Amino acid sequence: MSVTAAKGFTAAGIAAGIKENGNPDLALVVNNGPRRAAAGVFTSNRVKAAPVLWSEQVLKSGQLSAVVLNSGGANACTGPKGFQDTHATAEKAAEVLGVGAGEIAVCSTGLIGVLLPMDKLLPGVETAAAQLSEHGGEKAAIAIKTTDTVHKTSVVTRDGWTVGGMAKGAGMLAPGLATMLVVLTTDADLDSGSLDRALRAATRVTFDRVDSDGCMSTNDTVLLLASGASGTTPEHEEFAEAVRAVCDDLGQQLIRDAEGASKDIKVEVVGAATEDDAVEVGRSIARNNLLKCAIHGEDPNWGRVLSAIGTTRAAFEPDRLNVAINGVWVCKNGGVGEDREKVDMRYREVHIVADLAAGSETATIWTNDLTADYVHENSAYSS
Amino acid sequence: MSVTAAKGFTAAGIAAGIKENGNPDLALVVNNGPRRAAAGVFTSNRVKAAPVLWSEQVLKSGQLSAVVLNSGGANACTGPKGFQDTHATAEKAAEVLGVGAGEIAVCSTGLIGVLLPMDKLLPGVETAAAQLSEHGGEKAAIAIKTTDTVHKTSVVTRDGWTVGGMAKGAGMLAPGLATMLVVLTTDADLDSGSLDRALRAATRVTFDRVDSDGCMSTNDTVLLLASGASGTTPEHEEFAEAVRAVCDDLGQQLIRDAEGASKDIKVEVVGAATEDDAVEVGRSIARNNLLKCAIHGEDPNWGRVLSAIGTTRAAFEPDRLNVAINGVWVCKNGGVGEDREKVDMRYREVHIVADLAAGSETATIWTNDLTADYVHENSAYSS
Repeated sequence: MSVTAAKGFTAAGIAAGIKENGNPDLALVVNNGPRRAAAGVFTSNRVKAAPVLWSEQVLKSGQLSAVVLNSGGANACTGPKGFQDTHATAEKAAEVLGVGAGEIAVCSTGLIGVLLPMDKLLPGVETAAAQLSEHGGEKAAIAIKTTDTVHKTSVVTRDGWTVGGMAKGAGMLAPGLATMLVVLTTDADLDSGSLDRALRAATRVTFDRVDSDGCMSTNDTVLLLASGASGTTPEHEEFAEAVRAVCDDLGQQLIRDAEGASKDIKVEVVGAATEDDAVEVGRSIARNNLLKCAIHGEDPNWGRVLSAIGTTRAAFEPDRLNVAINGVWVCKNGGVGEDREKVDMRYREVHIVADLAAGSETATIWTNDLTADYVHENSAYSS
Repeated sequence: MSVTAAKGFTAAGIAAGIKENGNPDLALVVNNGPRRAAAGVFTSNRVKAAPVLWSEQVLKSGQLSAVVLNSGGANACTGPKGFQDTHATAEKAAEVLGVGAGEIAVCSTGLIGVLLPMDKLLPGVETAAAQLSEHGGEKAAIAIKTTDTVHKTSVVTRDGWTVGGMAKGAGMLAPGLATMLVVLTTDADLDSGSLDRALRAATRVTFDRVDSDGCMSTNDTVLLLASGASGTTPEHEEFAEAVRAVCDDLGQQLIRDAEGASKDIKVEVVGAATEDDAVEVGRSIARNNLLKCAIHGEDPNWGRVLSAIGTTRAAFEPDRLNVAINGVWVCKNGGVGEDREKVDMRYREVHIVADLAAGSETATIWTNDLTADYVHENSAYSS
């Protein structure tokens, strides 16, 4: 049900001809109110795509009537013309929906450095508007796919209100693999300040800790729109938990569909002096190409875990580090622990626990293995 | 001629049986004086192998009589027993050479977390000592190979004095791919302070800017030994230039032999406000897996270069960035530049210039593409 699970929303997904292969490439999500509160979180890459610059700007009002999303082109590094194209897209959507362009967010994903075919995109917005439906969430989720093999949606329903959403890509806000676009909707009756708090708290521990390949996109965007159509105003904690649950679910789906991956790796850092230390160590492990290759080869090479920990500024003593892989403590006190032959790595999920023995803080980062398929997919992507 | 090109040095390389396949795995380099000055630079990984901890300690005196190097095992993350093994290795070399153990540096490379077979290593030191020769430099260079397909040596001769050396691995001090071990020798008559200054200045702009896969080893070591046997004391600048030339040559050889690579990528950052900015941007580009895959696919995907620049803290404006790939300015002012079809990427060397348009500082980082062969080699390494 995706972005139309919550009351007050309609959506559509169509093939506008932006993608040369004729696959769906344009999605429209409309908030029919009564409220039109919104919040957003964007890539921390300093090279931001035109749609990110635009959407950051319009979000300042805390109000959104609709989101236009296209796959088939990122509209990044496209100069003033690229920004004009984003602006024209918002104007077109505003015109057909009878609202102001300043209430329209725009998201794009695809190749960087290529202008969008506006002669196809603008008519596509009209076509999509004509197909808006309370059952259109699924089609919208399909239309934003790029290298995704499946579309990703998630819904959580609580007492009288719902949070739903869709996602594409495999990555995170900072950093990200390919572009991650996420639109979340809710019929809870909340203002933009509440949405913003819940969204930031959720992304910080979900999408932000999904680190498939350490590369940060120019286009990553997560939006949360509230219609108030349920007439219910949940407690902040309850709402924040629901948003986090949807983000967590979508984040897991992104990892499971990461380009070329054969393993999903849960890197859990425990015993850290601070949460920041835990996140830094988790990212360092998650980004270590040598370790990611070893996991691909089903090799519990804990030395590469220690080597990755050693590059961080986190508080730890080398001879107190412990590492478990799939439940076997293969490294104890910085040296050889239990027999590595005991580690069973046949399954897709691999669980690494790194114990810094320096405190009680923890963090979990999700990543993938590094495979020949990843290389193949990303060496053939634009040519 | 390697480490025996300079007068006053003998070396040997033998198969001690540390490697199960019977390949050479133990090298010995001896400084016969009259001087025995030395300097060293080590990995900045906080998880340091036993031989690194030992060699850092003995180097404090500024004196070395010999270096024992083994491949077939890194002796990293091996606890107190690992350190005892390094100590025993130094003691054995000291005994057969008739010097103190505090004048013996030890270097190890291979798998982390495995104890060395001391019953083979210690007799190997005796065997190597018996084969020491003024022509042994080549054999020593061969004995330190792990996944290297060729051994690496370099020699520079100036007016009456020589700097020579050997290297293994493909990587750098901080960070490094697999372990990099380098031993340099000179017959110039210099004290350890002069050696230290020249070595640090050289490694900072050579090995330290070779970033094949962004992973930092627990064992990286670069040593410089001076025998004084030429009776000549060169000017500091002249000597420093010679050391830099040898390091640069060995660094290039490391990149050209990097695991699984099909392209050598020269990332030249120009127009930076500071040298630190240039290095940070160069490293960010050099470590971007998506870009490395694109280069492997001979795809001049400059969007991934901009995306990598955007993750840094360097001074720049996104709409002033320029990028050239193999001489074609495919990105101008942050947007589309010359026709990417003009870029010829058929050859092994690829030259990326990133112009930050923010100053006049520059730096060059060397890296490799990311290939299926890299994945294969590193997923099958220890099992």
